Amino acid sequence: MDRDSCVVAADDPVLKTVFGAEMLRQMRAIDRYGVQDGWPLHKILDPFVLTVERRRRIPVIDDPDEDVISRVRAFYNDIAAMIEQECGRLAVPLVSITHEGFGRALITVGKLVVLDRTLRDVHRFGFASLSKMKDEADGHLSLALALVGRYPEVAGL
Amino acid sequence: MDRDSCVVAADDPVLKTVFGAEMLRQMRAIDRYGVQDGWPLHKILDPFVLTVERRRRIPVIDDPDEDVISRVRAFYNDIAAMIEQECGRLAVPLVSITHEGFGRALITVGKLVVLDRTLRDVHRFGFASLSKMKDEADGHLSLALALVGRYPEVAGL
Repeated sequence: MDRDSCVVAADDPVLKTVFGAEMLRQMRAIDRYGVQDGWPLHKILDPFVLTVERRRRIPVIDDPDEDVISRVRAFYNDIAAMIEQECGRLAVPLVSITHEGFGRALITVGKLVVLDRTLRDVHRFGFASLSKMKDEADGHLSLALALVGRYPEVAGL
Repeated sequence: MDRDSCVVAADDPVLKTVFGAEMLRQMRAIDRYGVQDGWPLHKILDPFVLTVERRRRIPVIDDPDEDVISRVRAFYNDIAAMIEQECGRLAVPLVSITHEGFGRALITVGKLVVLDRTLRDVHRFGFASLSKMKDEADGHLSLALALVGRYPEVAGL
């Protein structure tokens, strides 16, 4: 397999979901120099997918580069955006990563922490497929919405 | 006034408070190379005090250096430690600052956000006196404890 070839198919159904559309928006938002202008959608989300083959090429221990940190942020921004769309309240993401690749991802709605994850080995951030990535995001989304539903007063502060 | 001389008095009463003792602990924790070993207490906390004179020497716009970022972290770590002492629950600080000196400081207890502050002009972080610094920390502490008291269930999650 060529290093630059895509593993995400051009017709991957995730690209057409709300999650996929939001991910593309997030990736475009951080593409400050317009590198991705004119890229097909599947190529933009391709770096999120780490096949076994790709994962094998990444050292076990390494510092994350700016690109992978941007992708981590894009992922949690996406989840925050979806939470916001669903519950109609501002969801604020905060991703803090040390240069060694450890950190924490938080999303708050009002005074409620609706997502709180410890991040490690950020240089190996990725998913087996776009569909697995969407599953993980959906899981966070439902937990977050359940919390907002249970503590609406705190989420409204 | 000499640039290196202290503005904090050796007998500043704040040094003997719980807040002061915790600040000293925090500052020692981040002093990885033992630079402050043997320093008198007031000298360790001296950089937190920005007199009018000192403030005037700092450019209006500048990037924060590592030392001032460490002090910001120490300040919020201190508040988190005090919250923990008072309410008996883990209080987790998260300070995220861009290299331009903007950011956000959060403290969470369980799933409750007990402190949430936007940070700006971090290179000018400091207080008119140790006593003003303690007042600000105490203010955050009481608001945080009030929130924990009001939403103990969320703080216990």
